[in-house]
Amino acid sequence: MNQTVKLLQQHRSIRKYKTEPLSEDQILAIIQSAQMASSSSNVQAYSVIGVTDPGMKKELAVLTGNQAYVEQCPLFLIWCADMFRLREACTLQDTEMVHGTMENFIVATVDVALAAQNAAVAAESMGLGIVYIGGIRNNPREVSKLLMLPELVYPVFGMCVGVPDHDPGIRPRLASEAVYHRNTYDSSKTRLEIEKYDQVMREYYLERTKGKRDTVWSKEMADKYRQPVRAHMRAFLEEQGFRFE
Amino acid sequence: MNQTVKLLQQHRSIRKYKTEPLSEDQILAIIQSAQMASSSSNVQAYSVIGVTDPGMKKELAVLTGNQAYVEQCPLFLIWCADMFRLREACTLQDTEMVHGTMENFIVATVDVALAAQNAAVAAESMGLGIVYIGGIRNNPREVSKLLMLPELVYPVFGMCVGVPDHDPGIRPRLASEAVYHRNTYDSSKTRLEIEKYDQVMREYYLERTKGKRDTVWSKEMADKYRQPVRAHMRAFLEEQGFRFE
Repeated sequence: MNQTVKLLQQHRSIRKYKTEPLSEDQILAIIQSAQMASSSSNVQAYSVIGVTDPGMKKELAVLTGNQAYVEQCPLFLIWCADMFRLREACTLQDTEMVHGTMENFIVATVDVALAAQNAAVAAESMGLGIVYIGGIRNNPREVSKLLMLPELVYPVFGMCVGVPDHDPGIRPRLASEAVYHRNTYDSSKTRLEIEKYDQVMREYYLERTKGKRDTVWSKEMADKYRQPVRAHMRAFLEEQGFRFE
Repeated sequence: MNQTVKLLQQHRSIRKYKTEPLSEDQILAIIQSAQMASSSSNVQAYSVIGVTDPGMKKELAVLTGNQAYVEQCPLFLIWCADMFRLREACTLQDTEMVHGTMENFIVATVDVALAAQNAAVAAESMGLGIVYIGGIRNNPREVSKLLMLPELVYPVFGMCVGVPDHDPGIRPRLASEAVYHRNTYDSSKTRLEIEKYDQVMREYYLERTKGKRDTVWSKEMADKYRQPVRAHMRAFLEEQGFRFE
């Protein structure tokens, strides 16, 4: 196993950071690594806002659901799908951009995710830790206003970056056979793989909580999907100018 | 610059492969690296189909827009957003999954992209090359049928993997200042950054084509966005059971 594969397989989400700020060189290496990820037809349909301002981080910590590490981390990145730049490019060529399809939305959302994951890997390779913050979608209107996002830009997720100040250990994943299929999708194995993973996660939780938390993955998922989650997203995205034809 | 950052920044898309197949160990290392990417609330809402069957690769090469490398590469991965497994987990807990929001769709689409980018990095660290295939969305119904995808699963993109048999060089990206914003989004710089990148890309194209291709990025984008792209995606996704409330 080479060093990079080893690094990838040792990922854990960091939720406690030292106060040490990132250097400009570190930030640049992270952003440049992000940029080298693949992009659909080279559209590069994303932007990233790096927040270091303490007041803004404090506000964002509240908006993302009172997550202390958003305030505590030295750099909080907000990864945005961005079709504003593409519209500017079209305008520069006296062309009216035709957009508003689900396809356009998928491309921008995928583009930013690929870039962000490269950033995560780059940061971790430099001894930094990260955690993705889906909570940025809790209050997307307020976040967009605070970050002054123009039309056709939306915050997809946040990412704390900094020097780790704890080691939470690695969380087990589904077995590879559960997510990997050969030539065709084999739905007959799904149930059994969930049950196997349920046992793995039961032991993991029991061990981490010294016997206090006795649950399984499928129960967590059932609890999560018992009600709609962040049902405001569609309306918010339309306010930002996105369409889904 | 450490080895991993160097690797990330040397990415280029490979469109010509040696016939040499991947070993089972290589495939496993790639999939396990993918799985260690972050996942929203540990939902792991993705699956990946590894196609090695020559007949299927041939068919997929046609369906993705006659891309020869899809047939030629030893392993063609199709990365799918997957909420089928989550519904199975809910069923196992006698719970009816409430889904159908834009949020659910974003989570699954982001989850699979993060995993895929880890796979790309792992493959490249092992000396392999990759190229993302957005063309998998050209004929998503036929692809889904061929791969036997169940309801609530959709193919987001493909990925060729194999030993590189050419070196296309690195394609320049937008300047980091174009995509990175400090504390707030600075839309006043966008136009200038596009014009700067246009010049970079003009030189790049001229050099690569020995003066034959004289164009700029904004013109390419304008040509691309003059008409709707893959306008069938929304209807296809609804057929697969996705909703976007």
